[in-house]
This record gives sequence, structure tokens and C-alpha cells, in this order.
Amino acid sequence: MSEKPKLITPRLPRGFEDRTPGDIAAIGAMIDKIRTVYERYGFDPVETPFFEYTETLGKFLPDTDRPNAGVFSLQDDDEQWMSLRYDLTAPLARYFAENFETLPKPYRSYRQGYVFRNEKPGPGRFRQFMQFDADSVGATGPEADAEMCMMMADVMDTLGLAGQYVVRVNNRKVLDGVLATAGIIGDEQKLTVLRAIDKLDKFGPEGVRLLLGAGRKDESGDFTKGAGLTDAQIEPILAYVDSGTPAPGVEKGSNAHVVATINNLAGLIGGSETGLAGVQELAAIFGLVSAAGFGGRVILDPSVVRGLEYYTGPVFEIELTFTVRNEKGQDVVFGSVGGGGRYDGLVSRFRREPVPATGISIGVSRLANALKLTGNLGATEPAGPVVVLVMDKDQTPRYQTMVSELRKAGIRAEMFLGSSKNFGKQVAYADKRNSPAVIIEGSQEREQGIVQIKDLVAGKQAAAAITDNAEWKAARPGQFEVKREELVAAVQKLLSEQ
Amino acid sequence: MSEKPKLITPRLPRGFEDRTPGDIAAIGAMIDKIRTVYERYGFDPVETPFFEYTETLGKFLPDTDRPNAGVFSLQDDDEQWMSLRYDLTAPLARYFAENFETLPKPYRSYRQGYVFRNEKPGPGRFRQFMQFDADSVGATGPEADAEMCMMMADVMDTLGLAGQYVVRVNNRKVLDGVLATAGIIGDEQKLTVLRAIDKLDKFGPEGVRLLLGAGRKDESGDFTKGAGLTDAQIEPILAYVDSGTPAPGVEKGSNAHVVATINNLAGLIGGSETGLAGVQELAAIFGLVSAAGFGGRVILDPSVVRGLEYYTGPVFEIELTFTVRNEKGQDVVFGSVGGGGRYDGLVSRFRREPVPATGISIGVSRLANALKLTGNLGATEPAGPVVVLVMDKDQTPRYQTMVSELRKAGIRAEMFLGSSKNFGKQVAYADKRNSPAVIIEGSQEREQGIVQIKDLVAGKQAAAAITDNAEWKAARPGQFEVKREELVAAVQKLLSEQ
Repeated sequence: MSEKPKLITPRLPRGFEDRTPGDIAAIGAMIDKIRTVYERYGFDPVETPFFEYTETLGKFLPDTDRPNAGVFSLQDDDEQWMSLRYDLTAPLARYFAENFETLPKPYRSYRQGYVFRNEKPGPGRFRQFMQFDADSVGATGPEADAEMCMMMADVMDTLGLAGQYVVRVNNRKVLDGVLATAGIIGDEQKLTVLRAIDKLDKFGPEGVRLLLGAGRKDESGDFTKGAGLTDAQIEPILAYVDSGTPAPGVEKGSNAHVVATINNLAGLIGGSETGLAGVQELAAIFGLVSAAGFGGRVILDPSVVRGLEYYTGPVFEIELTFTVRNEKGQDVVFGSVGGGGRYDGLVSRFRREPVPATGISIGVSRLANALKLTGNLGATEPAGPVVVLVMDKDQTPRYQTMVSELRKAGIRAEMFLGSSKNFGKQVAYADKRNSPAVIIEGSQEREQGIVQIKDLVAGKQAAAAITDNAEWKAARPGQFEVKREELVAAVQKLLSEQ
Repeated sequence: MSEKPKLITPRLPRGFEDRTPGDIAAIGAMIDKIRTVYERYGFDPVETPFFEYTETLGKFLPDTDRPNAGVFSLQDDDEQWMSLRYDLTAPLARYFAENFETLPKPYRSYRQGYVFRNEKPGPGRFRQFMQFDADSVGATGPEADAEMCMMMADVMDTLGLAGQYVVRVNNRKVLDGVLATAGIIGDEQKLTVLRAIDKLDKFGPEGVRLLLGAGRKDESGDFTKGAGLTDAQIEPILAYVDSGTPAPGVEKGSNAHVVATINNLAGLIGGSETGLAGVQELAAIFGLVSAAGFGGRVILDPSVVRGLEYYTGPVFEIELTFTVRNEKGQDVVFGSVGGGGRYDGLVSRFRREPVPATGISIGVSRLANALKLTGNLGATEPAGPVVVLVMDKDQTPRYQTMVSELRKAGIRAEMFLGSSKNFGKQVAYADKRNSPAVIIEGSQEREQGIVQIKDLVAGKQAAAAITDNAEWKAARPGQFEVKREELVAAVQKLLSEQ
């Protein structure tokens, strides 16, 4: 190659990121804790590949107006469209349907891995991110939904977040009943109402009223078209949104609060059978929650709706209740780190009979971020290797032998493999690797049958106390010599003392 | 929905597969063992995302004649091409170049994860598969290459494959020297020769001779065009291919064999400086290998070439030496489960200065298959949960309370969540889940304040000994009752005894 090729800029596409050793260890430890809870609850792992046929996944992402928007898709050799999974639920539905004959029913599984969204990335918003899901497929009753909520609470407790979260529960069927009573039955109009309610936290009840009616103009003057409902239609919806507000003197999340809210909801569904079924399911869920001692941690909240379209009954959301400062310097509640719900229709796309299913999904990166903020993300950088320095380039077989002896004893060790012969640069490398010690054998040591061990931990402490350079050289803090044949024992002793 | 939508067939695109609990546990345990070795050797983890810019990855896959062949690619919003990684080396080169200023040098990392190849799938050939790599970037000398070979040997030993593998080592520079002596210098002609040598195992020396010359007709009459070399050019190449054959009385892999092979190679490179450098590197590698006690496990084999184009010096391959029966019923050597080599040019694509690098890659699925065949793949199906049966549908809060008590004690447990009220079906579910016991509380037990515990493990053993149905009913093998408040203690005792 006489001509120099153009250099390529080393960079990632937007919305993707690398993970460092500290991240990997911390998230790995968090995932192990979540896995322990999922397994104690009786769920078994399964793993599906990253690609599925596009028609298999279906289109259930929120806010996707363009076809294929939100999903990474490409055409296979035989012209069929394949997509990268955008969540871990749609592939599970395919897996269950494909293995229907052999799987135990109900089928209880957990799945962990990356999913992909072809969206505009933003701060904290990635196009590849990790989810950790659990689902019960073939489980009809509210017992399965209640279990999901309790499991989420146990996960949060296990991660050290006790007292800093609530699992909020609602039921889409109740809302369907309220909407039927208000004369709203079209899927599209329902979706507009759902999205207006979803904005309650952001705009308050008056904002939701505008979004349900003529529309809402924000501070910047931007206008959002409303659902165009009449006042008579809007009132029951606002009453519904308000139905979870505790009466004066009633503690939020208490049994009395749950009972009052369920009574409020029962009064808002008119004669709707769907609405009544929803209210009964909620009552059953909270009966179980209370019996199992999860009251207060799992709470009823009619304003929870969830973005995904495929939910058909109970929906739940894990909310972290502590506040964090946002980009604008405001203190805001940390908010959701996961959720889920019942999706009885998703597997039915593959089979004639109805297949009930319910599940949860935890956003791993977002939860890890919450743990970091609360000091619950344990792991740090890995402990570095013992580094055998290369004092004489022609003695590498001797140094390699030392390294092999150390490794055989289970000690993390390596020979310095860089090109520098400089002692200081080799020690600086060891320091940067967080190394506990370096091993030195120059010609003098070799003649005497000894090696020098430089304790980098003690050395750093001692060096901090020494201000004079000559004094440092004389003291050689943390450095000592041992017989060559005692190398492994001496390093073992040093590591156990550090 | 009055009209039934067309059912979708639940299936995966070709070349992708699901992984079951047994697989996941077994491969997870295997990966943990490999990780332990990599870490003991001083490597730290890093993880890059699945997507990279296509130009960042470059095109280094073997046998790719079409542009973009072998790689899954799609265009981003801004028209730039992105690709799913096809190995774990090209993304590392990008990562190292992007973080050049902050990383320790040499940079020693390991990476594990799925890679994607857009190829025709076949038996045991997938389009998504897992690799587990380790690389030293910024390490010039043969010490780094030697370390890779020894680490592969230690990985195989750790996995229980001692005595059933060899790590075969060669150096592309030696072959370059031989080819230069034979007057072959064009890249394309070199590649044809490389591929002919790669067929040695399959066609033998005479087959390679034909492929280097006029061409070769196989048994079916298909003709493969040859490299068109003259006899004078072919002779030194065949001598090179034969240079690793031990002389009579010399043990394969012994020190004497290594020395003889290095001497043979030295005689074949003429005056080529590149060839000489290659021979010297091999001598250095085997000096280190011998000093560290890896002789015989790491062997010199001039016929190893490796498919990937980016290698620039030493190349290595882990070969499992035991035989397996192939589809045609023939006994064949299991063969390669991984390999690697030096690729000094890959990072230089991003930076003006040369950046030496060397690494290995293990094919996780193929290695797992080898472990399965040799009985070294430990893990099996997960132990199932204790199942609390639902005897009375309106008593689920009571059953849920039992489950919660068991879980709190760390016992894997669940309430039966299916719709069946049938006792036998519920027990059959528990059996299918590999459950150790079911808990039974009907109205009678409830009145007496007791529960029945049915030991499914003992029950199966006892049932096998009972042939008469009436006898079975009377004996109720493995079933016993305890006071309700002693449930947890009784289950704990049972599990510890099983």
C-alpha cells in the first residue's frame, strides 16, 4: 500500500453506546438479583433470537404513524421482511404458539436481553436497550396479575429500594366501561382519550380537560388538537381520573383507600359488563395483595394507562417516588422503571382459541441509573492483575514462567506486553490497571536468585506521606524482596493482607 | 372484531433458534468458566453495541464476492449505512481507536456476545451465534501471541477437555516469504493459494497440488479452477505444507519436532525478510510456550492459515482431536472451536500510526456442542417450584399467603395459575415443571388446620413400585400432612432431604 487510504472516524451511530467494566459488573450484579426473585416466583428462563418475521412481531409500538416506524427491519433473501425485536413480549407470543404442544401450561418464563427501537435518540433514550421480563401465558385469573405486581415489589425491595417505590395498578376494562358510558366506542377516539389521560402528570386535570375537548395550547403557543368530546362526555372521564384521590383523612395506599377507589370506579361504569369485570378483577387483585402483605407497596391508581396498545385488562407500573433534578433544574419524581399488564390477544394472533397472558417488563438501564442515584449500585472497577515487569527483553521466558506460576495459583497476573522498556511507564500501566503489585527481576536480582515485589496499594499510601524525592527513592515505599522460589507464596500473602 | 383475521404461522426466520432453560444454564456455566480464565490472564470486559457504521466494520469476511454479502445492513435516517457486527474484533478496533487517549496501553479486553452473518444457514450453521473473544491491542511482541495460545489451552483444560485438544500455531509471514520466493506476490493469487492450502485436510497434498496448478475435478465431475502456477512454483509450496510432518521417531508436538519444523521453514523462505521475521516470531512463541509448560498442548503447524483476511502474522486455531460421526456415518475429527491471530492493520484504519494487536475468538455454540458430546456440559433442567394447588377457587388469598410465606423463606414456589380445577391436571402441571412437591388444602384440611404435602420425588419412586391402582390410592405414596403453621418448616425439611 504505497498510497495512504483515507482515515475512518471511529464513532458509533446515534443512540448506541459502549459499556465499560464497571457498568458491566454493576448491571450484571443487578440482573442476578432480579433473576433470583423471578426464579423464586417459579419463572424459568427462555431466550429467543434478535430477529423475527415482521408480521410475527406485529405493530404494537406507541406513537408510530409511519409503517414500520420504530422498528429496524430488512428484507431477507426470499423477500420476506424480518425485524429486530422491539420488546420481549411479542417474541414470547410467537415462542409460546410455536411450542404450544410441549410447554407446560400456564407457561411461566423470564427473558432478559437487548431490544431495538428505530427512533430519534435523545438524552437517556437509546436505540438499543436492555429489558428484563417475566410472563405467565395461559393464566386467566387476576391471581396471575396480582403475582406480577407483588414480584415487582419484591424486586425493588431486593435491590434496596424499600420505601422508595410504589407499584401502581389499574385495569383497562374499567376505563372501557367509563368510555362506553360516555358513548365513546371507536378505537381511534379511545386511543386519543387514553393519550390525554396519560398526560395527567404533566398537564393536570385542566390540561386533560382541554385535550379531551377543543384542544390545548402550550406556553410556546403550539396547539394540540383535542378529542372533540362534549362536556357531558368529558365529565365522567375527569371523574374517573379523579377517582383515585384519597378522601381527607384516608391514607394513600391503605386498605380504606383501595376500597373507596373501587367503590368510586363501580359508580362510574354505568351498566357496562366490561367495566364491571374490570372492577371485580381489581377487587380480586387487591384481596390477594392484602393477604400476602403487599398492601401500600402495590396501590390502585386509575390514572395508570400504559402506552402499548396490546393490553386488554389489568395494567401496572413500577414508579420510583424519590425526586431527582431534571435538565431544567427542577426537582421531579424519578418515575417509571417498568411495568406491564394483561395482553389476552397477543397469542391469539397465532391460534384460534383465546390465550390469556400477563407480564411485566423492567427497563434495565433506567433502573440501574436509579440504583446509582440512590447508592444501591454496588460494583465498581475490577481489581487489576499482578504485573510482571519486563526488565530485560531477552528474559521474557523467565517472566512468562513467573506469570504462569501465579496464574496456576489462581492469581490474576500478566507480563507487561507493551513495547516500552521504561520502568516508570510500566509501573504507570500497572497503576492504571488498578494493579495490586508489580514483580521486578533485573540482572542483579536474577544473579542473587531473588525478585522484588512492589506493593502498589501500600506504595500509594506511603508515597502520599513522603514529600522529598530522594527520601522516596531511599525508602522505596511498599517494596520488598523475596527468594525467587517464594514468589507465589509472597504474592498470595500480600493479596490477603491488602 | 366480527371478522376473524388470518392466523399467522408462528415460526422463526431460517438460521435463528430459541434457547431453552437447559441450554441457557449449560452455556452460562461454560461462559463463566471461560471468563474466569480470561480474567486470571489479566483481561477486563468491555461491551460494544450490536450496530456499527458499515464503513467502521470494514469488509473482512471470507468468501464474500457480492458487496455487503455476509452482513446485515440497513440505512439510517441520514442515509448512512449501519451493519450488525459480524464478529467482535472489528468493533473492538473502533472502540480502541475512539477511546485511545484514556485506555491503558496495551489494552487487554474480553468480549462476549452474539454476532450476525447474513449467510445461507445450514446444519449447525446459524445467522446469529455467540462468540467469546479476548484481545491485546497495542502489544507488539510474540509474547502477546504466545499468551493467547496458552490461554486457549487453559480454557480447554478448565472445561474438562485436557488431552482432547491441540492449539495449532502458524505465522502468515512465513507463508508470505515462501510465496515471495516462488514469485507469487499479487494479493488475489496469494488468496487462491491460501484457500488451496486450507483444503489440505479435505483433499490431501495431491489435491492441493491440483488446486495450485491446472485445477481439480471432484468425484461428481465438478471442476474447480486452479491457481495456474508452474511446477517450479508449486514445489516449494508443497514442501512448505509438508514441513510440519515429523520425521520418523520424532514425537508430534515435542520440542524436537518444533525445532525441526522451524529449521524446515527457515530453509523455505529464501532471502525473504518477512519470512525470516515470521520464523523468528515462531521461535520466540515456542520458547515462551515451552518455558511456561505448554509444550505439546500448543503445537507448530504450518498448514494452519485461517479464513479471515485481516491477519498479518501469527495465527492460531484450537482443534478438538476426538472423532465424531458425521452425517455420512464417517468418523471425523471434531475440529476447530475457535482461533485467532495477529491483525496489526485493523486499528490503523482509524489512526495514522501502526497499532499492533492480537486476539482469539471462541465459537460458543460449537464448543458447547463439543462439551455435550464429551459429557463435560454440566447443567440440566432447572429444579421446579413447589406448587400450591388451587382446591377451592374462592380461597386463592389463602393459597397466595402460603406461597408468599414459602418465597419469603427463599423457597421457589407458586400457586397453580391455570384455569383447570382438576386435581390430576394440577399435579401433572407440577410434574411437568419438575416440581419437588405440591401443597394441598381442601375444605377438610382447612377445618382441621392442616395441609397435605405431596412429595413428588418420593411419590414417583414409590409409584414405580406399586402396580395396583387401589393399592396406590390407599398408600398415597410420598404424601403426608402437617399443621398449617408448620408448612414452611416441613417443606424446608423435605427439600433438604430430597
